[in-house]
Amino acid sequence: MKTNTLVLASRPHGEPTAAHFRFEEQELPALQPGTVLLKTRYVSVDPYMRGRMSSAKSYVAPFAVNEPLSGGVVAEVVESQSTTLPVGSLVVGNLPWQEYCVAPEKSVSLIPAGSQAPASYYLGLLGMPGLTAYFGLLDICQPKPGETVVVSGAAGAVGMVVGQLAKLQGARVIGTAGSDEKVARLLQLGFDEAFNYKTADVAASLAAAAPNGVDCYFDNVGGAITDAVYNLLNKHARIALCGQISLYNSTTEPVGPRPEAKLLKTSARLQGFIVSDYLPRWPEGVRQLTEWYNQGKLQFDETVVEGFENIPAAFLGLFAGENTGKAVVKVA
Amino acid sequence: MKTNTLVLASRPHGEPTAAHFRFEEQELPALQPGTVLLKTRYVSVDPYMRGRMSSAKSYVAPFAVNEPLSGGVVAEVVESQSTTLPVGSLVVGNLPWQEYCVAPEKSVSLIPAGSQAPASYYLGLLGMPGLTAYFGLLDICQPKPGETVVVSGAAGAVGMVVGQLAKLQGARVIGTAGSDEKVARLLQLGFDEAFNYKTADVAASLAAAAPNGVDCYFDNVGGAITDAVYNLLNKHARIALCGQISLYNSTTEPVGPRPEAKLLKTSARLQGFIVSDYLPRWPEGVRQLTEWYNQGKLQFDETVVEGFENIPAAFLGLFAGENTGKAVVKVA
Repeated sequence: MKTNTLVLASRPHGEPTAAHFRFEEQELPALQPGTVLLKTRYVSVDPYMRGRMSSAKSYVAPFAVNEPLSGGVVAEVVESQSTTLPVGSLVVGNLPWQEYCVAPEKSVSLIPAGSQAPASYYLGLLGMPGLTAYFGLLDICQPKPGETVVVSGAAGAVGMVVGQLAKLQGARVIGTAGSDEKVARLLQLGFDEAFNYKTADVAASLAAAAPNGVDCYFDNVGGAITDAVYNLLNKHARIALCGQISLYNSTTEPVGPRPEAKLLKTSARLQGFIVSDYLPRWPEGVRQLTEWYNQGKLQFDETVVEGFENIPAAFLGLFAGENTGKAVVKVA
Repeated sequence: MKTNTLVLASRPHGEPTAAHFRFEEQELPALQPGTVLLKTRYVSVDPYMRGRMSSAKSYVAPFAVNEPLSGGVVAEVVESQSTTLPVGSLVVGNLPWQEYCVAPEKSVSLIPAGSQAPASYYLGLLGMPGLTAYFGLLDICQPKPGETVVVSGAAGAVGMVVGQLAKLQGARVIGTAGSDEKVARLLQLGFDEAFNYKTADVAASLAAAAPNGVDCYFDNVGGAITDAVYNLLNKHARIALCGQISLYNSTTEPVGPRPEAKLLKTSARLQGFIVSDYLPRWPEGVRQLTEWYNQGKLQFDETVVEGFENIPAAFLGLFAGENTGKAVVKVA
C-alpha cells in the first residue's frame, strides 16, 4: 500500500519555511513476522528537529534530503504480525512522518492501557520533553529548598515541567515566556514570577524577580535572556543547557558577551545535555512523572494542530512561539 | 618599627601600570603573645590579583586603595612570641606586601624542615598554583588514559603542572604558550604538542594537534584559544575554567562567539572554580604533589625577580607573558 509521507525537500539556511518540506506518496513494505502496520495518531514537533534539518554534525544524525522526516509519534496498531502488539494497541516511538508506517515491534513501546494520562502525553509530559525536564532539573540543576531557579522558554513543553518540578523541590521559580497569556498560565501553574521577554526589560525584570541571585538556570532559549542570567549567578550556580531556540535559525555564528569570567567568579557549573544521555534511567523518570501526574502534582498543556498536512505549519510555529506546552499534530 | 610597604595607590581601568602602586613606610604593631615578626623572603605575584585591584565583586574581596596589597608570601620568623614558631622558622601564608610584618601564628603554615623542595615552591608547585592544577585537572577534568587534554597558558605556574599531571594520568597533552622558548620547554616537560599562539594559526594548530578531538580543557587564558577549543570538543568533554588572563585588562565587556550550542551538542561540562573551593582537601593535594615531586615525576620552573622594589614590575610582567612557570620576587 501507499501512504502520505512528509520528506525533507531541501535544507534550510536560516529560518525554515514550508518550501523545505514536501508531501509524497510512498510505498510501504509488506508486513513481516515481528512487524506491525501502524496508523499515526499524534506527531510530535520539537525544536531540536531544526538541528537535524542541517547537515552539521550534532548529537542526532541529520535528516536526509528527499527522505522522510521522523520523530516522536503515537500510533495505533491496525495490522499485526507481532505476538506482543495486538491490533488496537497504542504505541509510541521514533517513527517516520507518514500516515501509515510499518515498524518492527521492538522499535516502539506500548502505552500502558490503564494510564490516567491521554496517549499524546507520551510525546510530552511522559515522553521526551518531560524526561528532559526531569533529568536536566533534578540531575544537573539539583535545586534545594529556598533556592532560586530560572527557566527560559518556561511555557514550552520542557520549561512548563521544569518549573513545576522545581516548585516540588521547594525552590523559588522564575519563568520567561513570549506572551502575556503564557505568563499568566505560568503563574497559574505555580511559578513565583514570570515575565514576557518580548515586552519587558529582560535584565531589569530578572534582577527584580531574583533579589537573592540565581542558583539554578534551565536554559531552553539562549541569547539575551541567558546573558542576563549570567550576571545574577550565585556561588556554585548550576546551569542545565537544554536548548538555544533563539539562535537555531541564525545564519551567522551567534556572538555575545563572553560568559567565562562570570562562571569562573561564581564557581558555576554549566552542563550541556540531551535526554538520551540518561537513557538507562528513562523508566525511573517515566515512573516518577506518572506518579506525580496521577497525584495531581503536575499539570501539562498541549497545543494541538489537526491534520497530517499541517505538520510543517506546527513545526514552523515553534519558532514563532505559537505553542503553549507541547506542540502536537493530531492525525485523523 | 617601620617597614617598607606596597600599597594600592589607585584602581586601574584597563592595563595596570607602576603608577597604581605606591611604596611607603608603615609602622608595625608591637608583638603580642601568639604573634611573630616575619621577614619577607619571597613574594608571589599572580594573575588573580588583577581582579582584586578592581572594586567589582569577585571571589576574593577587592584590595583597598591606600592599604597594603597582600598575597602568598614565604617569610622567616625573626622575633617570636609564639610557642609553635621559633625564630628561624620558614613559614608561608597570605601576608601583606611588606618587608617585615607582624602576623598571628595561626595565619601562617610552617614549611616542613625536611622538604626536598625549595621554600619558594610553597608559593608554586606545592602552593596555590600547584593545588589549582591538581584539583582543576583531577577533580573537574578527570582525564582518562588516551584522552586529549588541552591546557592554555601552559607555561605558567598552573599550566605547567596541569600538563605534567595529565601526562601522569596517561593522557595526550597539548599546550599553548606565548613564545618559542616556552613551547620548547613544554616539549621538554613531556607535553605531546605545544605551539606559540602569538605566531601560529590557533584554530588550525589546535585542530592538527588534536585529530581525535578534545576531551578535557584546562583554561587559564580565555579568548581566541578558548573559542578554538570549543569547536573541537568531544562528547562529554570537561572544561575547567581557571583563569581568563587574556581578558583581565579589557575595558569593555569581552564579546565572542557564543559557546552554548557547542557545549549543548557535545553534552560538555564547563566548571568554574577557585582553589579555595577545595580547601578541605588541600592537605591531600600538597601530600600528593610533594610525593610526585620527590619521586622526580614533576618538574617546576620559576621566574625570579630580585628586590622588594620590583614587585610591581614582576606583577605587570605577568600580563606581558614574561614569566615561565611561577613568578616570584626574592626579597633580600
